[in-house]
Amino acid sequence: MKKTKSGIYGLNSLLDGGIIENTATVVIGAAGAGKTTFALQYIMRGMEVGDDGVFITLDENQEQIIKEAVDMGWVDILEYIKNGKLVFIDASAEQFSNFIRKELPSFVQQWGGTKSRIVIDPLTPVIWAQPDKYVQRELISFLFKELRHVGTVVCTLEEHGAGDLTGPETVIPMYMADCVVHLKYSTKGEGVERKLKVVKCRRSRHSERAHDYKILPGVGISIHHKKRESTGKTEVAEKVLAEFRERMKDLPKSTRIRLNKALTGLKDSDYETIDPNIFLSDIVEEYQG
Amino acid sequence: MKKTKSGIYGLNSLLDGGIIENTATVVIGAAGAGKTTFALQYIMRGMEVGDDGVFITLDENQEQIIKEAVDMGWVDILEYIKNGKLVFIDASAEQFSNFIRKELPSFVQQWGGTKSRIVIDPLTPVIWAQPDKYVQRELISFLFKELRHVGTVVCTLEEHGAGDLTGPETVIPMYMADCVVHLKYSTKGEGVERKLKVVKCRRSRHSERAHDYKILPGVGISIHHKKRESTGKTEVAEKVLAEFRERMKDLPKSTRIRLNKALTGLKDSDYETIDPNIFLSDIVEEYQG
Amino acid sequence: MKKTKSGIYGLNSLLDGGIIENTATVVIGAAGAGKTTFALQYIMRGMEVGDDGVFITLDENQEQIIKEAVDMGWVDILEYIKNGKLVFIDASAEQFSNFIRKELPSFVQQWGGTKSRIVIDPLTPVIWAQPDKYVQRELISFLFKELRHVGTVVCTLEEHGAGDLTGPETVIPMYMADCVVHLKYSTKGEGVERKLKVVKCRRSRHSERAHDYKILPGVGISIHHKKRESTGKTEVAEKVLAEFRERMKDLPKSTRIRLNKALTGLKDSDYETIDPNIFLSDIVEEYQG
Amino acid sequence: MKKTKSGIYGLNSLLDGGIIENTATVVIGAAGAGKTTFALQYIMRGMEVGDDGVFITLDENQEQIIKEAVDMGWVDILEYIKNGKLVFIDASAEQFSNFIRKELPSFVQQWGGTKSRIVIDPLTPVIWAQPDKYVQRELISFLFKELRHVGTVVCTLEEHGAGDLTGPETVIPMYMADCVVHLKYSTKGEGVERKLKVVKCRRSRHSERAHDYKILPGVGISIHHKKRESTGKTEVAEKVLAEFRERMKDLPKSTRIRLNKALTGLKDSDYETIDPNIFLSDIVEEYQG
Amino acid sequence: MKKTKSGIYGLNSLLDGGIIENTATVVIGAAGAGKTTFALQYIMRGMEVGDDGVFITLDENQEQIIKEAVDMGWVDILEYIKNGKLVFIDASAEQFSNFIRKELPSFVQQWGGTKSRIVIDPLTPVIWAQPDKYVQRELISFLFKELRHVGTVVCTLEEHGAGDLTGPETVIPMYMADCVVHLKYSTKGEGVERKLKVVKCRRSRHSERAHDYKILPGVGISIHHKKRESTGKTEVAEKVLAEFRERMKDLPKSTRIRLNKALTGLKDSDYETIDPNIFLSDIVEEYQG
Amino acid sequence: MKKTKSGIYGLNSLLDGGIIENTATVVIGAAGAGKTTFALQYIMRGMEVGDDGVFITLDENQEQIIKEAVDMGWVDILEYIKNGKLVFIDASAEQFSNFIRKELPSFVQQWGGTKSRIVIDPLTPVIWAQPDKYVQRELISFLFKELRHVGTVVCTLEEHGAGDLTGPETVIPMYMADCVVHLKYSTKGEGVERKLKVVKCRRSRHSERAHDYKILPGVGISIHHKKRESTGKTEVAEKVLAEFRERMKDLPKSTRIRLNKALTGLKDSDYETIDPNIFLSDIVEEYQG
Repeated sequence: MKKTKSGIYGLNSLLDGGIIENTATVVIGAAGAGKTTFALQYIMRGMEVGDDGVFITLDENQEQIIKEAVDMGWVDILEYIKNGKLVFIDASAEQFSNFIRKELPSFVQQWGGTKSRIVIDPLTPVIWAQPDKYVQRELISFLFKELRHVGTVVCTLEEHGAGDLTGPETVIPMYMADCVVHLKYSTKGEGVERKLKVVKCRRSRHSERAHDYKILPGVGISIHHKKRESTGKTEVAEKVLAEFRERMKDLPKSTRIRLNKALTGLKDSDYETIDPNIFLSDIVEEYQG
Repeated sequence: MKKTKSGIYGLNSLLDGGIIENTATVVIGAAGAGKTTFALQYIMRGMEVGDDGVFITLDENQEQIIKEAVDMGWVDILEYIKNGKLVFIDASAEQFSNFIRKELPSFVQQWGGTKSRIVIDPLTPVIWAQPDKYVQRELISFLFKELRHVGTVVCTLEEHGAGDLTGPETVIPMYMADCVVHLKYSTKGEGVERKLKVVKCRRSRHSERAHDYKILPGVGISIHHKKRESTGKTEVAEKVLAEFRERMKDLPKSTRIRLNKALTGLKDSDYETIDPNIFLSDIVEEYQG
Repeated sequence: MKKTKSGIYGLNSLLDGGIIENTATVVIGAAGAGKTTFALQYIMRGMEVGDDGVFITLDENQEQIIKEAVDMGWVDILEYIKNGKLVFIDASAEQFSNFIRKELPSFVQQWGGTKSRIVIDPLTPVIWAQPDKYVQRELISFLFKELRHVGTVVCTLEEHGAGDLTGPETVIPMYMADCVVHLKYSTKGEGVERKLKVVKCRRSRHSERAHDYKILPGVGISIHHKKRESTGKTEVAEKVLAEFRERMKDLPKSTRIRLNKALTGLKDSDYETIDPNIFLSDIVEEYQG
Repeated sequence: MKKTKSGIYGLNSLLDGGIIENTATVVIGAAGAGKTTFALQYIMRGMEVGDDGVFITLDENQEQIIKEAVDMGWVDILEYIKNGKLVFIDASAEQFSNFIRKELPSFVQQWGGTKSRIVIDPLTPVIWAQPDKYVQRELISFLFKELRHVGTVVCTLEEHGAGDLTGPETVIPMYMADCVVHLKYSTKGEGVERKLKVVKCRRSRHSERAHDYKILPGVGISIHHKKRESTGKTEVAEKVLAEFRERMKDLPKSTRIRLNKALTGLKDSDYETIDPNIFLSDIVEEYQG
Repeated sequence: MKKTKSGIYGLNSLLDGGIIENTATVVIGAAGAGKTTFALQYIMRGMEVGDDGVFITLDENQEQIIKEAVDMGWVDILEYIKNGKLVFIDASAEQFSNFIRKELPSFVQQWGGTKSRIVIDPLTPVIWAQPDKYVQRELISFLFKELRHVGTVVCTLEEHGAGDLTGPETVIPMYMADCVVHLKYSTKGEGVERKLKVVKCRRSRHSERAHDYKILPGVGISIHHKKRESTGKTEVAEKVLAEFRERMKDLPKSTRIRLNKALTGLKDSDYETIDPNIFLSDIVEEYQG
Repeated sequence: MKKTKSGIYGLNSLLDGGIIENTATVVIGAAGAGKTTFALQYIMRGMEVGDDGVFITLDENQEQIIKEAVDMGWVDILEYIKNGKLVFIDASAEQFSNFIRKELPSFVQQWGGTKSRIVIDPLTPVIWAQPDKYVQRELISFLFKELRHVGTVVCTLEEHGAGDLTGPETVIPMYMADCVVHLKYSTKGEGVERKLKVVKCRRSRHSERAHDYKILPGVGISIHHKKRESTGKTEVAEKVLAEFRERMKDLPKSTRIRLNKALTGLKDSDYETIDPNIFLSDIVEEYQG
C-alpha cells in the first residue's frame, strides 16, 4: 500500500503518511475555505515528483485558477502546462457526465499504467446535473471506481444546506470516497475559525481531531499542530500481547495466528480508552462463550 | 432460539449472547463509522465456524471491500472466496430490487437448509431505487421475510438527513428489522466520539446503554465495556416470586401458571426501577379489580 | 360505559379503570418501544376472559409476531389460534384499504354483537397507502367508526419525523382516536428512557403524567408507579358544593340541577389548581353577569 | 355591539363580556386539548337561553360527540336534538365545501333573522379539501362572511406542524377570524400544562395573558384566574384627559372631539406601559409638528 | 422631499418626520398585531387633512373593516365614504392582479396629480395568487412603481412561516418597498409583547430600535417612547468637520465639496460608534492611498 | 494585479488595497442593509477617477435609485448620466438572462479595452428566472466570466431563507464570485447591529473579522475600525526564514527557491497561530519524510 505526499503541509502525518495511491479523496469546504488552494497544492506537489497531472474544472474558470496559482507564486504551473505534464480540462457538468458514462472506461483502458494525480474542482455541479439521488450515487460510484485505475483522485465539494454536511451534494460522495477531508470555515465571535478534519480514511489509521489551518500567501494551506501526535509507544500493547499469548492457547490455530498478528500491530494509543483485561475477555467470550 | 456469535468483540454480551439465528439485523452509521468493517467481521467470523457467506454489495465496490479486508490482515478472505465458502455479489440497486421481487422466493426454496450469513452493504440504494415510502416498506419487509429462511442477515445503512435517525432511508428498515445497532460517530469538541448502541432487539433482552468502541487495525470494531454489566442476581426476584405465590392463590389456574413462569425468569436488575409491591398490586388489580 | 381490562400492568388505573368498550385506541412508539408487545398483551388478556380476538398485521410478519409471543412465554397463543378464538389476518396495506372501503360495512353488519378485541399492528402503512392527508383522514375516520360497532380497537403507530408526534402519520389518527397512548423511547445520556403517557382519553378522566415502564421478559410492559395516584378525597369538593347551593338559588332550575350534579361528581384533586371562590364567581358571572 | 355568553367558565371576562354577536371565533388545540368540549359548552349554553344551534361535524362522528356530551352529564342534549332546537349536520369536507360555494348564500338569505349559534368541529378537513393556500383563504373568508349574517360562529381547528401555530391549516383561519382562542396543551416535565390564551379579538379589549384551565367532568372547561384582572380604575386616565383638554385647544374641532371621546374611554391599565406626557406630546406632534 | 403625517402616534419621529410622499410602505404583523388598525389610522389621518383615500381590501371584508373603525369611535368614516373622499374597493386577489397588469397604467395616467393615500389590506393574497417567486416579485415591483405616481401607499402583510420574516410572502415586498414597519406581536412568559420596529426606510434616517406599542380603544396604535431620541447635537460633528477641512485641502475640488456638504449634515449621534480620526483617515486613504 | 478603490470608506484596507480589477464581487445583505448604497458608492467613486459605469437594475426602479443618490447628496449622478459616463440599464430578469446567453459574448468583444465598473442590483431575480440550481450555476458562471473581460463587477444579492447564507440564491454566486462581502443587518436586543465581513477574496489577503459599519447620510457606508489592523511586522517571520535557509539546504533547488520566495512574503501576523518549528518540520516531512 503506497502513500502519496499530499503537498499540504502537515496533512500527511494526519493520514499516517499521505494519501493512499489509487484512491479517491473528497475535500469539502464552504466559499473561502481554500478548496481550490488545496487542489493546486496537491497537483503542484505531483509536478515536483514527476507525476502526471489532470485538473478538471467544471465552472469554466481554468483561466481564474491558473491566475490564482500564479498569484500564489507558483509560476512553474505555466511551464508544466506548456510541456504537457499538467493538463487542464474545462467541461460543463453535462459534458463531463456524458464523458463518464460513455468514454471513461475505454479511456481508462488506454491510459495504461502511468502514475498520475487527478483533480476535479468542484464535483458539485456533476452531482447537480443528475436527476435524482439514486443516479447521483451510481455515477459517482462509477467515476471513482474507474479513476482509481488511472491515478490518485482529489475532488473538491462545496458545502450546501445547513452546514452539517448532510445535504445530498456532500453526503453521497462522502460515502463513496476512500478519504474525506473537511475544511471547516466558520464564524467565531467577530472573527473566523478554520479547522481541518479527516472525517474518514479507509484502510488507514487517521487523526480524529480537528486541526487549525491557515492559508498563507505563497505557501498555501498549512496545518497548525499543537504538538505532534504521539507516534506510537508500545509498552502497554506488549503487555497485552504477552497476556494474550498466555490466555489464548486453546484457540483454533488459524484464529490464534490472525489475532496474534493483529495485536502485534497495535500501539499504546490504541488502548487509550480500552481496558485490556475486558478486551481480552471479550476475545475469550467470542471464541469460547 | 439459537444465537450466532457476531464476531464484533464485546457485542455478544450486549445482545444476551449473540445475534438470534434467522433474523435480520440493521447496522446504521455515518461515513467513517465502520459499517463495512462491522460487516466484514461478521462474515469472517462465520467463515471460522464453517457457515456459508454471501456478501451483497450495491456500490460496485467488491474490489475495494476485499482490499480493505486484506489491509486489515484478514487475508484468509481470498481463500474463502476461492473455495466458494464466501460469495460476493455485485449488483446495482435496480438489479437487486428486481431480483428480490422476481427470483428471491424460488431462490429461497431451492437453497434449502444450509446455515449461512448474509450481508447487504449498504442497503441504502435499494431503498432509494423505490418510488415512495410505501413501496420501500413493502420491499424491505418482503426481503427480510424471505432471507430469514435462508440465514442470518446483517444490512448496513447510511445515516442521511439530520442525524437523529429519522430519515425514511433509516427509519423504515429500523421498523422492519429484528435487531438494530447504531454506530454513532460524531464530533465532540475538537475530537470525535464513537458509540455503539443496540436500539432494539426483538425476542431478546439487550443492553440499553451506549458503549464506546474503537476500530483497531487488524482487530476491527472493539467495544469498550467500562465493566461487565451484571449478569443477573435473583435475590430480590425470588422474594417477589414468593410474595406472588402467596397473594395470587385465587387467580385462574392458567393465568397463575403463566405468571409464575414469567416471574421465575426475572432477575434483580429487572426490578431496578420498579417497586415490587406496586407491581404485584397491579397484577392483582388486573385480575380482580 | 363499560371498561375493558387492558392487560398492560398498571395502565388501567391511568385510564380510570381500563379502556372504554367499543372505542379506538392508538398506541404510538419508535422502533424498540414495545408496540407489538403492547398489542400482544392486550389480545392475550382478552383470550383469558373469553373475548374474541382479531390481530391484523400489515407487514406480512404474522409468523414473527407469533414467535415473539411464544418467546415471551405466551405459548397459549398457539392454542387460541388453533381453536379459532384468535384470528390473524395478514394483509398488504392496499388490500386492507380496499377491504375497509368495500367490505367493512357489510362485515360489521354480519358480525352482530359478539364482544371482541381488534388489533391493527401497525396502522402506519394503511395511512401511507392513501394519496393525501385528506383521504388519510377520511379513511381512518371511517375505519374507526365502523370497527367501534364490532369491538374495542387498539392500533399501533410508528413515530416518523422529528419525534414530537407531528408527522401526518401520527397526528391524523391521534385526532380520530378516542384514546391515545404514547410509548416514548428516547436516549438519555448514555442510557435510554421509557415513558408511557396517556395523551388523550375521550369521555374519561385520565392520568396527565408520564410514567416509567419496562418490558419484562415473560411479563410484558409494566408501568412503574412511584406511588398510587390519589383516588379521590372530596373534603374540599363538598365545601364547594355547599357554597354553590347557597349562592346559586336564583339560577334557572334546569341549570341548577345540571350544575349540582356536575359539582357532586368532582373530587379534591379537581380543585388542585383552581381557587373555588373564583370558580363559583365565574359561574355566577356566566348566568347573571 | 351585543355580546354572547360563551358557556366556558371564566372566558367571558377575558373577552370583555363575551363573544361579540355575529362574529367568527376560532378555537385551536392539539389532540386532547378539549376543543370538542369547548364547542359543546358553547352550544349547550345557547340552548339554555333559547338560541338555535347548528353543530356541523366533519369527521362523521356525530354519534361520538353526542355520547361525549351525555357522559359529561349534559343529557338535555338529546331533548334539544329531538325538539329541533339543536341540529347536527354530518358532512364530508367535500360535501361541505360544495355547500359553502353553491348553497350557502341562498341559505343565508332564507334563514332570516333568527339568532343562532353555529359550530364547525373541526374546520381542518374543510381546509385540507382545497387545492392550495389561495383557495383555502378565499373559501374560509367567504364562509365566515356569510355565516356572520346567520349567527355567532365557533370553529375548532387542529394544531398541525411544529406547534407554533404556523401551519397553513391554522394561520389562514386565524387571519380571517374575528376572535382566536388557543387551547395550548403541552408537556411540562413529567406532567402536562393547559393554557388558554386569547390571541386576538377584533373590536374588543381582551386579555393578553395565558390562563390555566382544566377540563372538569360534568363542568367542562374552567379557566383558573389567579385573581380577577383589574376592571379598570381611571385615576391616571382622568389626569391625562384634563391635561389633554388644556393642551389641545388649538386642534381642529372635529379632531378634538374625536380624541376627547377616545381618551374619555381609557382606563389606568391602558397607561401601564405608556408615559402620559410623551403620549400627549406625540399627539401634539401629529397635529402641529 | 415631502413627508406625510402617518396618523400613528409616535411613529413620525421614528421616520424623521413621517412617511415620504409617493413611496410604498409595508406593515408586517401576525394575527392580532394591529395591521388593520394601522391602516385605518393612516387613512383617517389623511381624511383630516383633505387627502383622497383608497382602501383596497382583498378578503371581501369591507363591511367588517368599517365596523371596526366605527367601534373604534371613528364614525366620521361613514361620512367620508358617503361624500366620496374615501373609496373602498373589495376585490379578489385574482381580480386585483388582473387590474394591476392590464388597467393600472392607464388608470395612473388618468388620475393626474391629486394627492392621495392608498391602502392595500392585506397584500398577502395578491402574492399567493401568482404562480412563483419570480412573478410575485415582478408584479409587486410593478404595482409599487405605478402606485407611487398616484399617492403614498401603505400595504399590510401577514406573517407566515417561522416568524423571522423569511417567508416569500414577506421578504419579496420587503425588498421592493421603500419603507418597512414590523409590528411584532409575540408571547413573552404568560403575557404578550408588542414591539414596533422600522426595518428599513429608503432615503431617510430612521430609528433602529424596537419600541413598545399598545392598541388603545378609540386611539389606535400608540408607540411608547421611553424618552425622546436625541434630536441631534452637533458638538463632535463640528470638530470632525473642522478637522476635515484642515486635512482634505488636497482633494479634488468636486470631491471636497461633496464631502464637505455630507459632513456638514452629520450629527453627534452619527459618530456614536465611529472613531472620528480613523474615519478621516479612511477618507484620506480612499483618495490618496 | 491592479486594485480598484471601492469608494466604501474603510473597505479597501480590509481587501489589502481595494477590489482587484477585472473580478466579480458579490455583496449580500437583507432589506435595509445598504446594498444599493454600497453599489452607488462604488459607481460614484469610479466616476471621480474617470471610469465608465454601467448600472444594471432588475426591478424597474432606475428612477428610485437615482432619487436615492440625489437624496444622499450625490447630485453629480445626473450629470454623469447626461454625458454618458454612467449608463443605467433597466431590464427584467428574463430579458437580462436572454441577453447574457445570446448577446453578451459579442458585446464583450466589441467593448474592447475601456476600464469600467459594472453594477448589477440585485442579481437575485436573474437567479430566480432560471429553472433549477444547475442552470443558475451555469448562467452565473458564464456571466462572471464574460463580464470580467469588460470591467470590475459588483453584484448585490438579497438574503433569502434562514439568514445563514445557505439558500441557493446566495450560495451559488458566492462560490462563483472572486470576492464576497456580507452586510449583516440583524436585531440585537431592542436595537440593531450592522456588521461588514469579507467572506472570501481570491488571490488576496483579506480581513477575517466582522466590522461595524454605519450608513451616514451624504457619506454612505462607513466601516468602523476599532484600530487599524497591524500592517505587518516581520520580526518573527525573518527568524523563520533564516531557520528555513539553514535547514532546507538539501531540498531540490526549484522547491527551495519557491519556498524561499513564499516565506519571504510572510509577516508576523501570519504566524500568530502557528508554531514556526512544527511548521518547518512539516516542510521537512513533506520533502524528506
